[in-house]
Amino acid sequence: MRLTILGSSSATPIYDRHPSSQVLSIDDTPYLIDCGEGTLFRINAFHVRKNKIKAIFISHLHGDHYYGLIGLLTTMSMQERTETLTIVSPERLQDIIQLQCEISKTILRFEIIYKEFESLESVEIYEDNHLRVSTIPLNHKITTCGFRFDKKMPPYRIDKNKIEQYDLSHLAIKELIEGKSVSVDNQFISLSDISIPVLDSKSYAYISDTAYHDSIVPKIQNIDLLYHEATFLESERARADATKHSTGKDAGTIATKGNVKKLLIGHFSARYQDLNPILEEACTQFSNTALALEGLSFDI
Amino acid sequence: MRLTILGSSSATPIYDRHPSSQVLSIDDTPYLIDCGEGTLFRINAFHVRKNKIKAIFISHLHGDHYYGLIGLLTTMSMQERTETLTIVSPERLQDIIQLQCEISKTILRFEIIYKEFESLESVEIYEDNHLRVSTIPLNHKITTCGFRFDKKMPPYRIDKNKIEQYDLSHLAIKELIEGKSVSVDNQFISLSDISIPVLDSKSYAYISDTAYHDSIVPKIQNIDLLYHEATFLESERARADATKHSTGKDAGTIATKGNVKKLLIGHFSARYQDLNPILEEACTQFSNTALALEGLSFDI
Repeated sequence: MRLTILGSSSATPIYDRHPSSQVLSIDDTPYLIDCGEGTLFRINAFHVRKNKIKAIFISHLHGDHYYGLIGLLTTMSMQERTETLTIVSPERLQDIIQLQCEISKTILRFEIIYKEFESLESVEIYEDNHLRVSTIPLNHKITTCGFRFDKKMPPYRIDKNKIEQYDLSHLAIKELIEGKSVSVDNQFISLSDISIPVLDSKSYAYISDTAYHDSIVPKIQNIDLLYHEATFLESERARADATKHSTGKDAGTIATKGNVKKLLIGHFSARYQDLNPILEEACTQFSNTALALEGLSFDI
Repeated sequence: MRLTILGSSSATPIYDRHPSSQVLSIDDTPYLIDCGEGTLFRINAFHVRKNKIKAIFISHLHGDHYYGLIGLLTTMSMQERTETLTIVSPERLQDIIQLQCEISKTILRFEIIYKEFESLESVEIYEDNHLRVSTIPLNHKITTCGFRFDKKMPPYRIDKNKIEQYDLSHLAIKELIEGKSVSVDNQFISLSDISIPVLDSKSYAYISDTAYHDSIVPKIQNIDLLYHEATFLESERARADATKHSTGKDAGTIATKGNVKKLLIGHFSARYQDLNPILEEACTQFSNTALALEGLSFDI
């Protein structure tokens, strides 16, 4: 898995920072997470193959997390996308999309499957052959969920060296995968003789807008990468509380409690041109922290 | 009057060109014309004082002309705008704005006055102390109007040299402006003795998406500056007709028939990286033509 940051400003874009959007790529299939205004331009700039996007996950319906969606959808359609797209979001996003299509007399060339969530409890919301996604209810001013992405791993990986060693035909490999035994040089071999067990999965969690929220912790235990919003510094604690946002310290505390491997912070307030103080504040709690700056990619 | 181009791509943004938006400034008051996605970013980049924008004119409800509006409005509100804003548009734009505000539980801090038009006939749609605006019905796939902006000029301009020559007090000037006669050195003078008549007004017309449409011509006769879309070259005539757009030649022909002083062309298709062929095609019909490139400003 590979995560690319398309935007990490909070509601007011400034200093050439743009609102929230990320691309999670799994085996060359891109998934989009949030879609603030202008995401389309950064998808183009960072060469994301937009018509390959399989699903879009919208954490909540504040504009800085979804205003770019309608432009992306209509552009996908103009560029002749026909594959079905899944959109995971709070309810009523489809009302907004449908109203705009109706008024402009636009008929999208592809079907959209809407999967809607509430924020009362965590649910498994999406699954395909690459990954499983569950919601992480957050504490914000409107219905908001983060997402946990777990890459599906096969139980084994074929060892190419063993294929060569045994000089196996395609038919023999097929039979081994189906669980049959195959005779090689007068001895029987099975799948386990040509494969390496895959023990560890990979997981990523995206925690968008939220006040400090302890109930996130069990949902992110031991994951490989955590993105957590860090809109403010502790010096703006009153404002963070009033607007239901987190500080650098909050993000670091959640990462430590979750025992995650790495933390990314973003959703930076327009009041901070220099982001290093937020990074330093998070690092007081959790040292393996990085800024989610636009254009950066992180392997998971 | 001064026109600044914020965007002039057609529906698919490419080559760092962005969708339609322009700022017309009159005596330091900005007016926004169309508002494609990301207009907010370019308003910031080009230092337009967004909370001073007095009115916004939306030509039609295809996304590349209005998707940036909701983000601009909510940002104005977050930045504590309280002055009433007028939005001129086809009907139902307010449904889109209101639905998005309702779902995100956003209450804008300022009032919006919506002035809606149909495209059956030209109407006077907006007037303030700076300008008068009338609609210019166009021939596109949905209800679409261009706009003609006429700067209001006072009937006279006070000549400061005459004030000094006659050594006039503030009271005397006030009486002259009110139409009274004033005695100076035993002779009576009137307003005409201290003022210069203002004979010429200034006018700008914005012709967004349209097929070639002869009925535009009487509406733009002799104006100072005409913006006319030129999405295609004549070599794409069939596509221009099918999509109800114009070519460089169409734009030049309208400018010639309208006897305008200067022509700007824009709304360039994504198929053209090099725009000079469109400029050259327009110039075969009307020589004083320029490309409406982002960031350029034109005095009117």
